[in-house]
Formats: sequence, structure tokens, C-alpha cells
Amino acid sequence: MKITLLTIGKSAFPFVKEGLAMYEKRIARYTTYERIEIPALSGTSSLSSTEVKEKEGELILKKIKPSDEVILLDERGRSYSSIEWAHFLEKRLNNSTKSIVFVIGGAYGFSEKVYQAATSKLSLSDMTFSHQIIRLFFTEQLYRAFTIIKGEPYHNE
Amino acid sequence: MKITLLTIGKSAFPFVKEGLAMYEKRIARYTTYERIEIPALSGTSSLSSTEVKEKEGELILKKIKPSDEVILLDERGRSYSSIEWAHFLEKRLNNSTKSIVFVIGGAYGFSEKVYQAATSKLSLSDMTFSHQIIRLFFTEQLYRAFTIIKGEPYHNE
Repeated sequence: MKITLLTIGKSAFPFVKEGLAMYEKRIARYTTYERIEIPALSGTSSLSSTEVKEKEGELILKKIKPSDEVILLDERGRSYSSIEWAHFLEKRLNNSTKSIVFVIGGAYGFSEKVYQAATSKLSLSDMTFSHQIIRLFFTEQLYRAFTIIKGEPYHNE
Repeated sequence: MKITLLTIGKSAFPFVKEGLAMYEKRIARYTTYERIEIPALSGTSSLSSTEVKEKEGELILKKIKPSDEVILLDERGRSYSSIEWAHFLEKRLNNSTKSIVFVIGGAYGFSEKVYQAATSKLSLSDMTFSHQIIRLFFTEQLYRAFTIIKGEPYHNE
């Protein structure tokens, strides 16, 4: 299993980058993991919000292969407990040809085409978190899932 | 309104400290805010998990005044959307004598006495997050709530 985290927008805050680096180093012990950051179009152009969403959607779709399982991080997605989430990943873990791409959208969300290309939607919280913070939450939960799957202690330090 | 975040365990990771400092600086523009970190007892003593929970509970209760509204961050608590959460705070905002204490427990959770002293329970996610990470989530949501209440833009940079 290979896991990719695809984000619209670069990781802006130093603390987010540091946190991501820490959890990604831990995740690398368990699976092949890659983060791809697509620069955001919002704020950089004279496009409308719909146009930004469409164009960012095209950039997302370019990075996705037809065989990929595509999971959007979306407020309207399904909520999991950490244990359910670990089971979700565990089912896919022994399939070495499987690639899962998790996608964090831009400021205006996903285009209809991206929704159509997606296999499912995952919600980390009922609350809305910034696109910066959510990537940190996601990688922490990915690390946590592997400690649950492998029955290993979660390192809080 | 004064808001206190009471945590068991110090903020261990540099990235957590940096993130907290950033959001707390923003929160200070809106309200009186304080974070009190009580050193954790787990791992430092030969106490059982129940004993740790009891003793940490006593340390928590020492910091709470009878007039405080005490809200535990607890997986079994109520979930809010960011908008509902902002409304929750807004109702309390104009009461200058009001003090709210949010509490993040230790590795073994809260003692019965702490549950009894609490006014309510708040859940940020169905997922379990580390005690380190959850304080970062909380302060981000506190900052976000104030931007919603005041109708101000959320600064992603």
C-alpha cells in the first residue's frame, strides 16, 4: 500500500512543517508515504472562486491515476473513531499494489469533477479547521492508525 | 469573559509550542486568555493508572474556582460545528465576570471528581488525538470562533 497526501496550498507555517516532518518520519516506518503540495490559485489571480475551484480541480485530477483509491477530506464526509479508521487502513494494508490518495482541497473546496473522481469522503471533525492545520491532524491520525494496527505504543514524546 | 486552558502535561513538542504561541497571540486580541500546564504524574511515579487519575484530578480541582464554568475536552462530549461553537462562546462573551476553564486531561483521562465538578463536555472529533495535539486544535478553534463572532477574516498566513 502506498499512501499519498495531496494538498492544495503549500504548508505555510513553520510549526505545521515541523509537525508534518515529525509524523511523516514515523509513518515512513510503516508504509510508503508521499505528500504532494499543489500551489493554491486563490489570491494569486483574478479568477472567481468557481474558476479557482475548477482549475485547482484539474491540477488535482492530473496527479491521480485511474487505479488510485481517492479519498477527499471533506466536512460532509464520514466520521470514524481512531479504531475504525485503523481498521479501514488495515483492510488495504496487505494489498501491495493499492495506492490511496487523500486530498485536502483549497479555500473554496472541491470541484464537481473531483467529487466524481473520488471513492469516498472522510471527515476528521464536525468543526472546520484551516487547510494548514488539517494536514497536521491527518498525519497524526495516520501515524496513530499504524500504532493501532501494529499494536505498538503511541509515542507522545 | 476570561478563558483558561488547563492541561495535564507540559507542551512537549517545539512545533506544538510554536503553534500555541501563534494562536494565543491572536486570541489575546479578543479576550483574556491563560494556559496553565500541570505537569503529568504518569511515567514519573510508581502509581497505578487509577491513582494517577485521582491525583491529577486533585491538581485540576485546586485550579478551579466554584464560580468557574468548567468544560472538559472529552471524547464522550458534545460535538459542535465551528459556527455552533462560536455561538456557544458568543453567549458568554458579554458577561465580563464569567470565567470558563477548559480542561485537557492526562493519559488516563479524568477522575470521577473532575467529571462531577464539570459543567459540560466538549468533543473536538470522533477520533482520539494526542494530548499534545489536542491543545493545538483547541486554540485554533478558539481563534476561529472569535473571527466568526466578530465577522473578521480568518488569517491563514
